Amino acid sequence: MIKVERYKKNPIITPDMIKPINSGYQVVGAFNAAVTEYKGEILLILRIAERPISNDPNIELAPYFDCETNKTKTIGLDRNSGKYNFDDSRVISTIGKENEFDFLTSISYLRIARSTDGINFVIDDEPFVYPHNEYETFGVEDPRCSKIDNTYYLNFSAVSTHGVCVELISTEDFKSYKHISRIFNPDNKDVALFPEKINGKYYALNRPTVKSTGHNDVWISSSPDLKAFGDHTWLFTGSKDGWDNGRVGAGLPPIKTKYGWLEIYHAADTKSRYCLGAMLLDLNDPTKIVKRLSEPILRPETDYEKNGFFGEVVFSCGATLTGDVLSIYYGVADTSMAVCKFSMMEILNEIMK
Amino acid sequence: MIKVERYKKNPIITPDMIKPINSGYQVVGAFNAAVTEYKGEILLILRIAERPISNDPNIELAPYFDCETNKTKTIGLDRNSGKYNFDDSRVISTIGKENEFDFLTSISYLRIARSTDGINFVIDDEPFVYPHNEYETFGVEDPRCSKIDNTYYLNFSAVSTHGVCVELISTEDFKSYKHISRIFNPDNKDVALFPEKINGKYYALNRPTVKSTGHNDVWISSSPDLKAFGDHTWLFTGSKDGWDNGRVGAGLPPIKTKYGWLEIYHAADTKSRYCLGAMLLDLNDPTKIVKRLSEPILRPETDYEKNGFFGEVVFSCGATLTGDVLSIYYGVADTSMAVCKFSMMEILNEIMK
Repeated sequence: MIKVERYKKNPIITPDMIKPINSGYQVVGAFNAAVTEYKGEILLILRIAERPISNDPNIELAPYFDCETNKTKTIGLDRNSGKYNFDDSRVISTIGKENEFDFLTSISYLRIARSTDGINFVIDDEPFVYPHNEYETFGVEDPRCSKIDNTYYLNFSAVSTHGVCVELISTEDFKSYKHISRIFNPDNKDVALFPEKINGKYYALNRPTVKSTGHNDVWISSSPDLKAFGDHTWLFTGSKDGWDNGRVGAGLPPIKTKYGWLEIYHAADTKSRYCLGAMLLDLNDPTKIVKRLSEPILRPETDYEKNGFFGEVVFSCGATLTGDVLSIYYGVADTSMAVCKFSMMEILNEIMK
Repeated sequence: MIKVERYKKNPIITPDMIKPINSGYQVVGAFNAAVTEYKGEILLILRIAERPISNDPNIELAPYFDCETNKTKTIGLDRNSGKYNFDDSRVISTIGKENEFDFLTSISYLRIARSTDGINFVIDDEPFVYPHNEYETFGVEDPRCSKIDNTYYLNFSAVSTHGVCVELISTEDFKSYKHISRIFNPDNKDVALFPEKINGKYYALNRPTVKSTGHNDVWISSSPDLKAFGDHTWLFTGSKDGWDNGRVGAGLPPIKTKYGWLEIYHAADTKSRYCLGAMLLDLNDPTKIVKRLSEPILRPETDYEKNGFFGEVVFSCGATLTGDVLSIYYGVADTSMAVCKFSMMEILNEIMK
């Protein structure tokens, strides 16, 4: 069992610390942040979820970004119409078609939290990335940040009636950004870019969601220019039973170690309980798995991990590495941000033994 | 109504003309062929579907390619076990999960038919492309051929337990081929490559199959090198009612005309009746639609289009253009190949009017 040290005052960022930017909304989530270090600070690029407040208990308000007016709007749905299922706190589905969703209950965007100690964060007043095109009408979610050369690349899920696809932007200053490409078409999510070229090519882990047959597995794809990806290669699936039998997806951008690329990923069981797992990919050919831990390195155990907007979830999009200390920042219960520490050496020894 | 002249002796290629390459199998389909002209001949790169013959009416044999032994094998499924649904002639699904499939009833591969008159074809004895990797264990399907510079590129769906993805190969001689890339990850199909670069980039129409929300729509993606695609852009969906309310997908590789890129695509209604439609894309920016015909240019009307392995289907992957005569080769009822002629001018006039 690998030792994990959760920060005692977790969670470190909670929705109540954040003022919504939409009037008539409440912040229900500040979670699943990308992580990077920039000019002596640790930045969390938070996924902020804002939910419209309904004054009528019979009406659920579903938010969306309206491209024509450039405004965030709501649609009122009658809770008693018998048309929609409201059981899932995250999504609204047509009754009988619960495998798909019609609306989300909140709209997500990206907002930066800045810290010098990695624990106490000051949160920007304004969003860094807010939905602005037809691929983002239901929100942008779950970013990852990879520094390649001197540019910071940020990928995130873009959710709309077109499905879930993946966009890539770059920034040099974390004030403005440049759109690079819509790098994966729907349905795909959980993209983690490697921080450097390998044998002349960029690589990205990604998680296509399949409909016709098969499972939601992690794939790896390569790119000449970070705009276009190809040579899509299946990488791994979850087990048939146990903690990872629902689906798997990349978590942190891979970390280079002497044993290989360390990938901390997430897996859910069929009851949507999310844990973190660890694996190593070949340094020179990341389409090859060196070894994978059979047991998770982090499971939902504490109250803040087990209870919230959507409970039993630990989900990480980033970490910092200082010496041997790997500080994993992770979303808990689709609600807040927490942090925990591992010994890098211990993780690697456990995988390699 | 655009005039269509079906060849009187349609269908021109039928399964009974073709000897199976697997012993104990019958050819149930010779359809959905890519089309190209090569050294004075018209080539149809046929999708051949072979189905294992079961000697026990209670046992359905499901074929697959076994990568470990490099052999095509079968799994015997008890028709009376109550586990599987055998109602769809094409796929075998778990009862209660009919939106996904577990097995296909036949295994498809590509085989070339050659002709000097475009009507009478001689079919190669050997496959051109046979499943050979883990992405193709259930078969390779529905090829399209695009000649770019002096190389012939062939893309097709690769079907396996990993889902449906798209592979691209190239050939100079239609005897051997080179693997270029797995250009779209699952689920995606119906890829049609433009025959030349547009403003320095290659383009491909493609049809992601979405699971989370949305419809099965046509997207367009660009590439610097034909190995990797990005800038994925939503292009069009079917109508809410009528002939194209089920799903849409690219058909022929786009044809350059003075009015724009002519794309003949397919659409199915919710009962899986497939028709062909026509649209024009902007010559300089194919992510923009110039105009689209609201009515199909070809519907299943004849007996050979309405009845077969899977009836009510006309589905085209290629055509030849000689002067004003557009000869569309098309799969009928997932069984055979037929051909029909249109006046190119008439199609263009109808779209532009």
